[in-house]
Amino acid sequence: MSADLVQLVTSLAQRARAASLVLATMPTAKKNAALAKLADLIDASHFELLAENQRDLLSPEGTALSSAARDRLTLNEQRLRHLAQSVREVIALPDPVGDVLESTTRPNGLVIRKVRVPIGVIGIIYEARPNVTIDCAILCLKSGNACILRGGKEIFHTNTALAALITRALADAGLPTEAVQLVPTTDRAALNTLLKLDTLVHCIIPRGGESLIRFVAENSTIPVIKHYTGVCFVYVDRDADADIAEKILINAKTQRPGVCNAAEQLLVHTAAAGTLLPRLAAALIAKGVQLRCDHTAARILEDAKISHLQATLADYTAEFLDLILAVRVVDSLETAITTINRDGSAHSDVIVTRDAKTAQRFQAAVDSAVVLWNASTRFNDGFEFGYGAEIGISTDRLHARGPMGLRELCSYKFLIDGTGQVRT
Amino acid sequence: MSADLVQLVTSLAQRARAASLVLATMPTAKKNAALAKLADLIDASHFELLAENQRDLLSPEGTALSSAARDRLTLNEQRLRHLAQSVREVIALPDPVGDVLESTTRPNGLVIRKVRVPIGVIGIIYEARPNVTIDCAILCLKSGNACILRGGKEIFHTNTALAALITRALADAGLPTEAVQLVPTTDRAALNTLLKLDTLVHCIIPRGGESLIRFVAENSTIPVIKHYTGVCFVYVDRDADADIAEKILINAKTQRPGVCNAAEQLLVHTAAAGTLLPRLAAALIAKGVQLRCDHTAARILEDAKISHLQATLADYTAEFLDLILAVRVVDSLETAITTINRDGSAHSDVIVTRDAKTAQRFQAAVDSAVVLWNASTRFNDGFEFGYGAEIGISTDRLHARGPMGLRELCSYKFLIDGTGQVRT
Repeated sequence: MSADLVQLVTSLAQRARAASLVLATMPTAKKNAALAKLADLIDASHFELLAENQRDLLSPEGTALSSAARDRLTLNEQRLRHLAQSVREVIALPDPVGDVLESTTRPNGLVIRKVRVPIGVIGIIYEARPNVTIDCAILCLKSGNACILRGGKEIFHTNTALAALITRALADAGLPTEAVQLVPTTDRAALNTLLKLDTLVHCIIPRGGESLIRFVAENSTIPVIKHYTGVCFVYVDRDADADIAEKILINAKTQRPGVCNAAEQLLVHTAAAGTLLPRLAAALIAKGVQLRCDHTAARILEDAKISHLQATLADYTAEFLDLILAVRVVDSLETAITTINRDGSAHSDVIVTRDAKTAQRFQAAVDSAVVLWNASTRFNDGFEFGYGAEIGISTDRLHARGPMGLRELCSYKFLIDGTGQVRT
Repeated sequence: MSADLVQLVTSLAQRARAASLVLATMPTAKKNAALAKLADLIDASHFELLAENQRDLLSPEGTALSSAARDRLTLNEQRLRHLAQSVREVIALPDPVGDVLESTTRPNGLVIRKVRVPIGVIGIIYEARPNVTIDCAILCLKSGNACILRGGKEIFHTNTALAALITRALADAGLPTEAVQLVPTTDRAALNTLLKLDTLVHCIIPRGGESLIRFVAENSTIPVIKHYTGVCFVYVDRDADADIAEKILINAKTQRPGVCNAAEQLLVHTAAAGTLLPRLAAALIAKGVQLRCDHTAARILEDAKISHLQATLADYTAEFLDLILAVRVVDSLETAITTINRDGSAHSDVIVTRDAKTAQRFQAAVDSAVVLWNASTRFNDGFEFGYGAEIGISTDRLHARGPMGLRELCSYKFLIDGTGQVRT
């Protein structure tokens, strides 16, 4: 690795750190002014942004992308208007910084306040999505964090143009321009350097596919908040309402099959399987879903003359992200719980039942970020939680779990007020 | 690395994970029963524990330890009574599991509750301190976490004896015995295997010196909560009360110089330095403190004929953990803030002033876990915060910052209750 590159990235991080200390105590009005300016600049810069986006799309890296990835990289007028709108929506959200989370007075008279503060410097590592650039920059800014953005090489020109607008907006509002910085090279060595700067950067959030997240987690000495995708289960209990079961299952599997909170597997209690499974299967097949069944489920569907496949072992832990569903019959609530805790990914799991006691046991024992009773897995989402915006859905257990909004981009510190107390 | 060793550690972690899922929903009474039994077993096992401790002390590794480290490893009757007492104190603490942290009803009727849950499996990596074995095991148990203990080779026999008592206590209370496990080898390869088991172990807490913590942070793919030691500052403002300044400085520097929340550096405002510094310096010297001064401070002490040394650059960021104090004169509050944010370790920093506005600016701008006004740095401590017990003082910004008690050993999950809602 060249010494120049190490120097470049280190210097960038040092400047981000310095900017973060200034930004941490800036009033909400200044941060909102920068956001308002950025939205206006995006509105006024369609021509330049689309031109730079075209350079990316026409580059060797851009043309090599899959059509789905090219679509995600592509900007157009409508998407740019949407981008500016998302910036304006963040202005309306409450500033999380400075909230007093707890306050206690100790017997010795010390007053201890736990207050919400920005984390400091956050590194965002992602692929070729212009909306990630803007979303992450504005959420970090609103929560008082400096951020370092490192997107994929396919998005380099688009990002450079977007970053230039962010810098202008920061300057216009009187905020430190180095509070949002783009790593000015897509050299992998620069990323490796960044991931080791644990005295300057306080948190890394990788956004993208599992291999990117795993690479970052394995190579970073900075704490990483991971957003892996999900293997989500729907468990239909013996006491399930059939209409609710069908509605939830269809929504969880088919409304948007390619996302992390889509269902990947159906468990049906054996006492309900004979009557319910054929109905649920028929509804799923009508929506184009392929069913991959265990032996018991297959026999029931065979008897009902409903098309299905035999599942392989790998199907029971698979994240299909497609119109495919694994199906198993379980002999009890406890087996459903054990199965989900063993084969799921602790993301979003649902029980459909009329029995409150059964639901309570399920919610207590299933060790997932979001455990739902009679509601779709698709509700594990920052907007659905009322957060207004989200930086992602954390699959970690430390710091943030589930939807991450502005508050989850904050740490806290303790302020202690005394009158000369010393420890004895 | 031998395949056997990988298999051994992986199997241990799998069993810890299974135990954690059972422990997570165990009632408080059972956890307290296990703690009570453990305290009784410690009381009844002095002979065996002291004998195994002697084996460690007489081993080649034990005899090679420094005298301070040997002292920390050594058990005696009094320390064993103290150990049992600390177990009984944790019984009295409230169980953090199940607390409802937030509850909201969404416009679509979904009820979302955020509830405190155990993290899962916690790995504790430490050196040769028997009290860490017991403290970490009981705090993890009370907070519903399984734990994997990996102490240094110098403490192997003591740990094996303590772990046997913990296992008996768990069995006696009807809890899974594999909820607390000792890595049965001190082979470094076993540690390296453990640190990569990120699907089974959810959090690593290293307890010990900086090199141990750094090794763990660099080699773990599991999130690590770090407890580095501190470079803590006392800033004496132009409006400081001289009596309070002296009292706090003496306490922060000399009450227990070898710990992380002891002061390592004094900053004095230039307007107060002429009168205050000689008095403070004389008081410190009377307590045996060596002063390492910048040019301005040195001149003032020279004029006052008070002994001192010239500081080197390294002294300004040093963690002495000894009766040594770096001393600098600063020209303003803002310089004090910048100096602390640049040269400190964001642990515990104090301002001594009568001016509330000055104190507020200091508390807002100093980016440390604990920022005190007219109180000693030594108050950054779980017991002083009223937590009852602490697993350490986190120097991280994610998940937990500052003192970590039972609540900080927990994560949360969301329980969503619906009536068939789906996402549109």
